[in-house]
Amino acid sequence: MIQVDFEKGNGLVPAVVQDVHTGQVLMLAYMNEESLQKTIETKLATYWSRSRNELWVKGATSSHYQHVKEILIDCDNDTLLLKVEQDGAACHTGKYSCFYRTIEGEEIL
Amino acid sequence: MIQVDFEKGNGLVPAVVQDVHTGQVLMLAYMNEESLQKTIETKLATYWSRSRNELWVKGATSSHYQHVKEILIDCDNDTLLLKVEQDGAACHTGKYSCFYRTIEGEEIL
Repeated sequence: MIQVDFEKGNGLVPAVVQDVHTGQVLMLAYMNEESLQKTIETKLATYWSRSRNELWVKGATSSHYQHVKEILIDCDNDTLLLKVEQDGAACHTGKYSCFYRTIEGEEIL
Repeated sequence: MIQVDFEKGNGLVPAVVQDVHTGQVLMLAYMNEESLQKTIETKLATYWSRSRNELWVKGATSSHYQHVKEILIDCDNDTLLLKVEQDGAACHTGKYSCFYRTIEGEEIL
C-alpha cells in the first residue's frame, strides 16, 4: 500500500479533479486521511473544507456529486488525482469547471 | 486584471500542469508571485521549490522544459492551471506524468 504523505501539508493533500471522459480539469480541493478513506468507501468525492473546517461530501447540498472512478498519486506521494464522473457542475458558480478564466497576460503567451 | 490570492497559502498557490494536446495531468507544483511573473515573461514554467526554497525553472537541469500555452485561474483565485507543451518527461523518474500509480483500493472503485 502506498502511504499518502499528509505530513507535508499539515494533514492535507491537494486533490486535482479531472473529468474521466474528457480529461477536463474541474477543480482542486483538499483531502485529509478521513476524507480519502470516505471517498474510497463511498466512491463519492469527499474533501476537507478549509473554510468550514469540516468534512465535505461534494454534492451533499447541490446534488452535484462526483463519482470517483480512479485515484492516482504522484511520485512523491503528496498529491492526488481523482478521475470522476461529474453530476451537474463542479463549480459553485454553475460552470462545469472552476477553471473558466485565463489570467492577465494570456494574450502574450 | 484578476488578483491571484497568494495569501491563503502563505505566498504560494498550487499550479496544476496539463498537457495542452492530450489533456493528461502531468504534475502539481507551487508558484509564488515572482515565479508566476517569470513564467508569463519567459513562457517557460517556473515554480517555487518548497524543498530547496528557491525559484525553479522546470527543465533548467534536465532540459525537460514546459512551454506554457495558457494559464487559467480557478473561481476563488487560489489555484492555477497551466496548459503546456512538455519537452521530454515531466517527472524526475523519467515517466511522462508524475501520476503513474493508482493508490491502494483502486480495484474496488
